[in-house]
Parts: sequence; C-alpha cells; structure tokens
Amino acid sequence: MTYTYEYPRPALTVDCVVFGFDGSGLQVLLIRRGVEPFAGSWALPGGFVQMEENLETAARRELEEETGLKGVFLEQLCTFGDPGRDPRGRVVSVAFFALVQPDQHPARGDTDASDAKWFEAGKLPPLAFDHASILGAALERLRGKIRYQPVGFELLPKRFTLAQLQTLYEAILDRPLDKRNFRKKLLSFDFLVPLDDYSGGAHRPARLHRFDRRKYEALARKGFLFEL
Amino acid sequence: MTYTYEYPRPALTVDCVVFGFDGSGLQVLLIRRGVEPFAGSWALPGGFVQMEENLETAARRELEEETGLKGVFLEQLCTFGDPGRDPRGRVVSVAFFALVQPDQHPARGDTDASDAKWFEAGKLPPLAFDHASILGAALERLRGKIRYQPVGFELLPKRFTLAQLQTLYEAILDRPLDKRNFRKKLLSFDFLVPLDDYSGGAHRPARLHRFDRRKYEALARKGFLFEL
Repeated sequence: MTYTYEYPRPALTVDCVVFGFDGSGLQVLLIRRGVEPFAGSWALPGGFVQMEENLETAARRELEEETGLKGVFLEQLCTFGDPGRDPRGRVVSVAFFALVQPDQHPARGDTDASDAKWFEAGKLPPLAFDHASILGAALERLRGKIRYQPVGFELLPKRFTLAQLQTLYEAILDRPLDKRNFRKKLLSFDFLVPLDDYSGGAHRPARLHRFDRRKYEALARKGFLFEL
Repeated sequence: MTYTYEYPRPALTVDCVVFGFDGSGLQVLLIRRGVEPFAGSWALPGGFVQMEENLETAARRELEEETGLKGVFLEQLCTFGDPGRDPRGRVVSVAFFALVQPDQHPARGDTDASDAKWFEAGKLPPLAFDHASILGAALERLRGKIRYQPVGFELLPKRFTLAQLQTLYEAILDRPLDKRNFRKKLLSFDFLVPLDDYSGGAHRPARLHRFDRRKYEALARKGFLFEL
C-alpha cells in the first residue's frame, strides 16, 4: 500500500534523550541501530510517528519498544528539522527528554534496535544523524533547569546524602562545586528533610535526606534560583 | 504532480505567536484566514513547511508573507501534533514565538491571509484550529521567561520610563504589581541606566532609562531571579 499527497511531505519522527545518574556520573541511554542508515551506530531511541498517535505517545511507544523503559516523565525539548539531517530524505524529529534512575530502568535490546545501553555522558560513542546536537540541546536544557527546578530529585533515590546530590549537580554541570557553598545555598531553600538514618560505609557514615515536595512547590511558585 | 510514500505522513506546518506591547497592554498579531478551513476566522500567522527550508526559515517566510513582519527574533516554542487538531487530516505544527514593538511592525494583509491585525491579548476573537492552546503555551513561556531574562526589553522602545516597564510586566502577568517593590527589585539588578532625559507630559515628567546589555549579560551568566 502507498500514500499519495498533492504536495511533498517530510517524514516525522520522535527521539528521546534519557538521562540517568548512577551515583557518580550523568548517563545517557542509547540504542545500537539494527537497520540502515547508520546500522551498527549508537543513536537516541526513537522512530516514526504513527498517524493515530500524538507525539508524546509516539515517544513513549518507541522508548518502550527499543529500550524497555516505560512510565517515565517525558518533556518535549525541541524539534529538529534541518534539510539534510537524515540521508533518507527530509525527516523532521520532535525530541523529548526524560530523567530516570538507571537502576530502576535497566536497558534491554529489542526487535527494532539490536541493543540498548547506558553510557557515561562524558564518554559517548559517535552518534547517528544529528543526535549529538539533540543531546547537546537536552544537556543545555538540563543545566538551565537545575537552577530553577529540583530536577535532580528525579535522578536520585528517595533517600540520599548531600554528597550524592552534589555529585549529581557536578555531573550535570561537568565541573566541581565548592562543598561549603553548595550546602549553604542548598539548605537555605529549606526543602530537604534530614532523616535519622545514615548511609552505609562504616568509615564515614553520612546523614540521609529526603525531599519535601510540598515545601519545594510553594517555593517554586514564589521563585527559586540556585546560583551554581 | 503528486507525491507517493510507502507509509502515511502527517503534513507539517509552522505557526507564529507574535507578542507586542503598545505602551499599555500586551498585543498579539493575528491574520484573518482567506481560505478553508476556518475561512474568515482569525488565526496565528503560519503555513506549510517547504521541503528545502528549515523550520525557522519557514516560520519567517510565512510571517513575512502573511503579515509583512521580517527581521524579528523567533524562538521555537513547542510542537503541536494531536491527531484531530486540523480538520484537513493529520497536521503537525511547530510553533515559534516572537517579541516585537508593534509601532515598528505595522501589520498588513497579503495574498495568503485576507487581513493581518494586532489584538489586545485579553480581548482576542475565537481562534482557528488549536491556536488558542498554542497562544496559551506561548504566554506561559513568556511569563516564565520574564523572571529569568530581560525579554521585556525587546518589547519596549530604546528609552523608556520605569512606569512603562512596570506596565509591560503587569500586562504580561495580567495582574497589578506593587510600584515600590517592583522598582526596588528591578533597580537592585543594576542593569538600567538612568538618562538625563525625561518623557513628554508636562504635568509629571518621568526619567527615561535605557538597558545596559553588558551588565545584564554578566548577571545572566551568574544567575538572575526577578521575584514578581
């Protein structure tokens, strides 16, 4: 069966940038392409939008088909449509991004993609298409967001140490932060709850914290700036 | 001539939300549709993306063809792609938004659109398609941006009074602001330069200000929060 139109139409795809945090570094979920073009290359999970599904549904479907991930929070990032970005012809791609905890979302391969795997954000293989640009835009968005929103918390376990939180921020910003300054500013926001529990490690146990969502949301309405 | 594909493809359009400020209220540039669907209805300027042009080029071309506006700063907003948003079939639209001064960009009609006109943002006619949703998303983005960026300045003349700036912020937020608080916070950022000139109006002349872009940009790198 074929489909005929009066004017030429670009093909429409979705692509997903999925960030994770394994406790030490920022990670990105990639798939190895099983088909041409770029067969064998690593790429963002994604694929063609079907006619009866909306854009986010398409992104969720492709993400699950290619990596097994489901039920994650997806946010629309930006649409990439330069002519020539895909050797198959004009393909416009709506990019989404997600933040998850890799241990709760182990990657697996599937039929469309021959493999799915978490990579360290700083040590990525060459990516297919313009996926390096899409990833760059997602990273820029994430770096902007952590100044105004507690996005970090979606990447952390429910209970975490302040050191883990700082490591996450350092991983996102890709630079070290001063411990005293970081903690002083962070605690001034008053949305962390210290717990009576400590992290493992007999040598230097660290207090665990949790996030007080109600306090944060009140603060977010009023305005929030984390000067990093 | 027709175009045939192996799989069905959505049509791809761009739509532009253009905000202006006339000194008293926020305005939106609309066109009256000359063709079906929604012939005679008001709509955002926009149209179909051509195969050889990128998305922003398409938005600029449509904006100029339909309203005469050119050389404006366009930012990609979000892509709208719910099935059923267009009675012609599946049409996915990449929305852009722009901030301009209406007196420097008088609207004019053209061939594609039978009319183009500035409307007060609070008194819009019913809009074609899902353009009311697109406009709502653009307004939300603008309200978020003024807390972190000096977007207001693109809407004001080069020299302006603090009262004009407050009126602009009030128009965007659609609520009154306390004059003393607004000025105190605004002046604390130190990116306004008081001039030796005063606005017309013999009764209560007000000092004109200009914007120090270098100082602002230094501040933007460090972090900026305008609590409104």
